[in-house]
Amino acid sequence: MLASNILNELIAAVGAENVLTDKTDMICYGYDATQMEYLPDAVVHPANPEEVSAVLKLANLHGFHVFPRGAGSGFTGGALPKAGGVVLVTTRLNRILRIDTENLIAEVEPGVVTEQFQLAVEKLGLFYPPDPASLKFSTLGGNVAENAGGPRCVKYGVTRDFVMGLEVVLPTGEIIRTGTETYKAVVGYDMSRLLCGSEGTLGVITKIIFKLLPLPEAKKTMLTIFDSIDGAAKAVSTIIGNKIIPTTLEFMDHATLQCVEKRFNLGIPAEGRAVLLIEVDGDRDLIEKQADRIHELIKPLGLVQFRAARDEAESAELWRVRRLVSPSLRDINPDKYNEDIVVPRSKVPDVIRTIEKIQQKYDIPIVNFGHAGDGNIHVNVMINKQIPGQQEKAHQAITEIFRAALDLNGTMSGEHGVGLSKAPYIEMELSPQQIAAMKAIKHALDPNNILNPGKMFPW
Amino acid sequence: MLASNILNELIAAVGAENVLTDKTDMICYGYDATQMEYLPDAVVHPANPEEVSAVLKLANLHGFHVFPRGAGSGFTGGALPKAGGVVLVTTRLNRILRIDTENLIAEVEPGVVTEQFQLAVEKLGLFYPPDPASLKFSTLGGNVAENAGGPRCVKYGVTRDFVMGLEVVLPTGEIIRTGTETYKAVVGYDMSRLLCGSEGTLGVITKIIFKLLPLPEAKKTMLTIFDSIDGAAKAVSTIIGNKIIPTTLEFMDHATLQCVEKRFNLGIPAEGRAVLLIEVDGDRDLIEKQADRIHELIKPLGLVQFRAARDEAESAELWRVRRLVSPSLRDINPDKYNEDIVVPRSKVPDVIRTIEKIQQKYDIPIVNFGHAGDGNIHVNVMINKQIPGQQEKAHQAITEIFRAALDLNGTMSGEHGVGLSKAPYIEMELSPQQIAAMKAIKHALDPNNILNPGKMFPW
Repeated sequence: MLASNILNELIAAVGAENVLTDKTDMICYGYDATQMEYLPDAVVHPANPEEVSAVLKLANLHGFHVFPRGAGSGFTGGALPKAGGVVLVTTRLNRILRIDTENLIAEVEPGVVTEQFQLAVEKLGLFYPPDPASLKFSTLGGNVAENAGGPRCVKYGVTRDFVMGLEVVLPTGEIIRTGTETYKAVVGYDMSRLLCGSEGTLGVITKIIFKLLPLPEAKKTMLTIFDSIDGAAKAVSTIIGNKIIPTTLEFMDHATLQCVEKRFNLGIPAEGRAVLLIEVDGDRDLIEKQADRIHELIKPLGLVQFRAARDEAESAELWRVRRLVSPSLRDINPDKYNEDIVVPRSKVPDVIRTIEKIQQKYDIPIVNFGHAGDGNIHVNVMINKQIPGQQEKAHQAITEIFRAALDLNGTMSGEHGVGLSKAPYIEMELSPQQIAAMKAIKHALDPNNILNPGKMFPW
Repeated sequence: MLASNILNELIAAVGAENVLTDKTDMICYGYDATQMEYLPDAVVHPANPEEVSAVLKLANLHGFHVFPRGAGSGFTGGALPKAGGVVLVTTRLNRILRIDTENLIAEVEPGVVTEQFQLAVEKLGLFYPPDPASLKFSTLGGNVAENAGGPRCVKYGVTRDFVMGLEVVLPTGEIIRTGTETYKAVVGYDMSRLLCGSEGTLGVITKIIFKLLPLPEAKKTMLTIFDSIDGAAKAVSTIIGNKIIPTTLEFMDHATLQCVEKRFNLGIPAEGRAVLLIEVDGDRDLIEKQADRIHELIKPLGLVQFRAARDEAESAELWRVRRLVSPSLRDINPDKYNEDIVVPRSKVPDVIRTIEKIQQKYDIPIVNFGHAGDGNIHVNVMINKQIPGQQEKAHQAITEIFRAALDLNGTMSGEHGVGLSKAPYIEMELSPQQIAAMKAIKHALDPNNILNPGKMFPW
């Protein structure tokens, strides 16, 4: 509970209609995609950086915690007020301030929904590639704070690669600009990229300057099915080794295929053990040539089926297999732990085989799909929380899965971040010296530890 | 002067043959490309991260300064021991540890010369795009510390975009790994990118994991001459607006052209006011198509000459114009201040016009060339230091040039960094709050301020 004088000061800072304290509202802002729930004491909806600054200055003065939140679509509890305090929602800062078609940059506020931004730039013939699965509802501020990825990152890079500059309110309330409107810029430390992926612990983002690209002329989608996971993995390195970098190289393992086929009867051949959904984009002639070359290259690798879309409608049909994965998963078990390990791409078959062993050991269904081009696998551990012991088994299995990824020089997370969910595991990946250096930076910028405490590091 | 006990401890740490104190040696390590000179008290050549760590621990214990140095090719004095102390040279750490052709990554030590690394990966059909002008002698460690750019960055990005992970010795001597061997990785703060461009003030880099690309199949060079700077600038945005992102878009202004023509008689037409050296790379058929399309697109923009190379020899001939710029400059005046401002690319003509006015005001020749694709202009202020008052005039002119770049939402430096040369100007670009945040990070990681003090910020 916040003292009434603090509430009054928050009201003075952002306006009475922008400070919520009703229980119902607290429930609305106490969840995210993790199914965890932590109720805040209050929720504020500032309208501009000055109001964000005022809230953070009050927090430092009175010692309450502030938890920045975009759409609350995170997978690791990054926006949840576990320590109690004030949730600061950035969705009122939702304007696309400008799209500069000559210099290919855009300036936006953090509350803009990712897909809305993509559609706005595409209307002008431009392209913002990062495409997290949540793009229909997640916000660009959240994307930057988590350094969001997506299928297209294998060719185009992650959110960080499109951030040129930010306006940030530091934990102590100072409003700063980072970076510039030019892609090359080396004056001072790279605060923009330090903020990318810092999970709302180092500052509240209030403006973003993005780099844009010209919208590719055309794209071509191919659904390819292999008789082994090794064939699919070999296909990935063969395609890239032959100088073709597809826009997406989406992968589904046998368990995923079975699950989708059982529910939706898509006619996936029985001998299919792994799917690669491949998309190339760019010059219209070039992509046709690339599609032919890809077919030729992957034929000897145990290819069971190859379908190439001739138009947008056929492309959507091929993507349907991938889109039906999530709705199918709940048929296996009602509860899901959704991890997102990464390994060097040649190690995908190794880690999938290890995960199969872990699945047998704990007798829990595990379904794997993801972004094969960058070795980023969504590992879905499917359990029923009602069955005693299943949660514990899942946690043990996840620990072993993380260990497997790390042993292959990978990471525990390529897209979701650490937040609350992975904080207990972070010492598996980062050394005490690394954590100490990161905490020193956190302390330097947030000496009172008021901004998003309890996330990322076990404090 | 270092006390003899400290020298003995340095000798114990890295071996007697790797500690230099002779005056002649101090002169060798007291300069860089700025023509400034600051003699160190000693120079150490550690062989591995443990020895680097030992030197830094001694520095913290005894309170002497340490200045990391690669090839000493920097343009802003980043490696110079202005405050006195020990220069730590990383050139013994010069192994390419591995090139992984399947996962397209390489692990190198910081002392590897950039071009050597490029040749090594190209032999395997791979590609490391960053190409600073110093690539024949500068080291990869220096490239990372300065976040080096180059002509190809307009298409491929800067050094930072290829850094996946580092091994770093922190200023207090701890050896840490940052990042991973996977491009997607969001566990903890992005220490790798914080180190990129930190100019040796936050740690000594002892290993680098680079992302590589497949080597493009072919490239095509075009020399294009326009009757106005506006025509050349318009050509840049027209080409990119038509979905062609060239590998390089090198620009030379009229003063540069006159200078090269006078010395080398290349037959540049008299009506030529600006040159764009354009290169495209990729699929062989595609680049031929792109070259034709570029010619067609830029014809109406005051094109005076268009030459397209048919082979490698002709390409080298076209690049000759660009390569002869530096040797020609000294004909104008013996001394040069070489700045590297950046503006949004559509603003290049504006800033060039402002620079012309500044040149007239101070009556000093200023020659501009650079990377038009990302608005990065090398501004060469040519003076004769023997003539009284010229240095002061140059500094005033440079201040006005920086102001012009900043007023157009640009930056003082796109490639060279701040170092000593630009530290006096940094408050023109960064706010007191930005500088305070950066200094807080520096202090958090280097509480005794022993690593490369006096660089970047006016302490």
